[in-house]
Amino acid sequence: MIKIALDAMGGDNAPHEIIAGAVLARKQADIDITLVGDQARIEQTLVELKTDLKFPIIHTSEVVSMGDHPSDVLRKKKDASIFVATRLVAEKRCDAVVSAGSTGAQMAGAIFILGRFKGIDRPGIGQVIPNVNGGFGLLCDAGAVADCKPLNLVQFALMANAYAKTVMGFDNPRVALLNIGEEEEKGSELAQETYKLLKKANLNFTGNIESKDLVKGIADVYVSDGFTGNVVLKTVEGVATSVMKLVKKAATENISGKIGGLFLKTNLNKVKKMFDYAEYGGAPLLGVNGISIICHGRSNRVAIKSAIMQAVKCVENDLVSKIIQATS
Amino acid sequence: MIKIALDAMGGDNAPHEIIAGAVLARKQADIDITLVGDQARIEQTLVELKTDLKFPIIHTSEVVSMGDHPSDVLRKKKDASIFVATRLVAEKRCDAVVSAGSTGAQMAGAIFILGRFKGIDRPGIGQVIPNVNGGFGLLCDAGAVADCKPLNLVQFALMANAYAKTVMGFDNPRVALLNIGEEEEKGSELAQETYKLLKKANLNFTGNIESKDLVKGIADVYVSDGFTGNVVLKTVEGVATSVMKLVKKAATENISGKIGGLFLKTNLNKVKKMFDYAEYGGAPLLGVNGISIICHGRSNRVAIKSAIMQAVKCVENDLVSKIIQATS
Repeated sequence: MIKIALDAMGGDNAPHEIIAGAVLARKQADIDITLVGDQARIEQTLVELKTDLKFPIIHTSEVVSMGDHPSDVLRKKKDASIFVATRLVAEKRCDAVVSAGSTGAQMAGAIFILGRFKGIDRPGIGQVIPNVNGGFGLLCDAGAVADCKPLNLVQFALMANAYAKTVMGFDNPRVALLNIGEEEEKGSELAQETYKLLKKANLNFTGNIESKDLVKGIADVYVSDGFTGNVVLKTVEGVATSVMKLVKKAATENISGKIGGLFLKTNLNKVKKMFDYAEYGGAPLLGVNGISIICHGRSNRVAIKSAIMQAVKCVENDLVSKIIQATS
Repeated sequence: MIKIALDAMGGDNAPHEIIAGAVLARKQADIDITLVGDQARIEQTLVELKTDLKFPIIHTSEVVSMGDHPSDVLRKKKDASIFVATRLVAEKRCDAVVSAGSTGAQMAGAIFILGRFKGIDRPGIGQVIPNVNGGFGLLCDAGAVADCKPLNLVQFALMANAYAKTVMGFDNPRVALLNIGEEEEKGSELAQETYKLLKKANLNFTGNIESKDLVKGIADVYVSDGFTGNVVLKTVEGVATSVMKLVKKAATENISGKIGGLFLKTNLNKVKKMFDYAEYGGAPLLGVNGISIICHGRSNRVAIKSAIMQAVKCVENDLVSKIIQATS
């Protein structure tokens, strides 16, 4: 049975929604989920959730807060739930770790406790991006490495490609480089050098993609440095949220709007959900010796459940070996 | 009287919408607009537009196409409308140039024909960004300089600040650095170094801003390298367009949606317009010895009219001197 280590203390809605997510996942599939965190609070939450399901609990005394600096929290809070959960994977007692806590701490933990792949300079974060056709693409790096060399971007491409094939079910993912123009010679020095390397790589490289086309579904893997990737991700999220707020306002601001809003409500909620990252489970950290799924801080129980199911899919399909194969 | 040189041949809808924009502007204000381009086509368009207004025309035989490379088009097509129009400003025969043609060619023309300010390493493009409160901020650089040093970003900040004060009417613009976290130590090396310099600059520097907050209206000037700025801009545009398309689909896909859509139509059109850059006139090129306003390629007559009025405002308020003051 696949074993997931769940950081019960990480995230804006921890531990309640995190544990509720574990309950949902257990109802959906036959998996073993270890809850890592403050035992008393976890037990209390299980009572609140009125569930009969039993979960193994590993008690930890410390929690990483958003104010902790990722680079020294690993040293200062060894017993934090995210590190204890990651150690369960390193010690092969669990197959994957899932957390909605501090991304920096989770990355530091994965890199130092699980270790990087041989040959991988810097691990990257893969983030699923919805498109207007109802499909998905994968952006990598979504924020792990702010300053990148061309080699890093090529490795992100290879790892994301392996993930898109193995976990997302793409046969031959279309890999595109995020750039500020479509032609080969466009963009920063980094983009131009990366373009040359991607052309030669063992990938279905389709050239540059501009960010305005990102949600159109014309590629499956979007390659980017972590700074740009993170900016894009947060722009998509911010703009989609803001536009939907304006639409909501439009649907309440006068009589005609209110009537329209009433009739449109169900349909509009579907649109809103399409761009809500909290709905998409998590973002895999690619390039470490184990499965570590990073969830949005705002994750609710459904998002946590999706992330757990995503982790299961990574384990079932032996993602780590596939990525090692793709990058060696 | 203020004299504008208008590139009649640049843009997806040239010359018809460009010249229609000139007609609108002339109806609104007492300005002199010189139409630069193919004389026969301009005269034909004026007939089509059924206007009695007379415009000085300067005939040019060449047009920059989107396929031309900006770096050699200035040499190869000396008589292209954008370069002739820019020369009118350099020779003080006009006060500002407005174009919806190739941004690269317009920039090359401005830099080599008008010249850069002394001390300004690289001119930047300022782009007005709408916010959800109905207000606006200015992003700089929006795509002129893909590879930046911290000094470039500080100069963008000072120039954009001067523009925000002089042309947009902000008393004491809140200047924020676009970054992937709010804390000072976050982000790329470039962002970290720039942060230190902006703190010391003569600016109302409010710290980092994340792209998810860009359309929230919590700052007035957003400082960025041109690669990131361009990516953000195109993401805002792409996501806003895509979300509004989905909303439109939601308002037509079933009976209840159709009824709702009918009642909501007017309100939703307002939301759609808020994020349509073609509506906002143009983007000033900051750091050259003259006013050069870059319009969106898709500009319609209203956008061209707005850009002309924006150019007038730049001239009236002596933007060039204000920027020289701010950066020297």
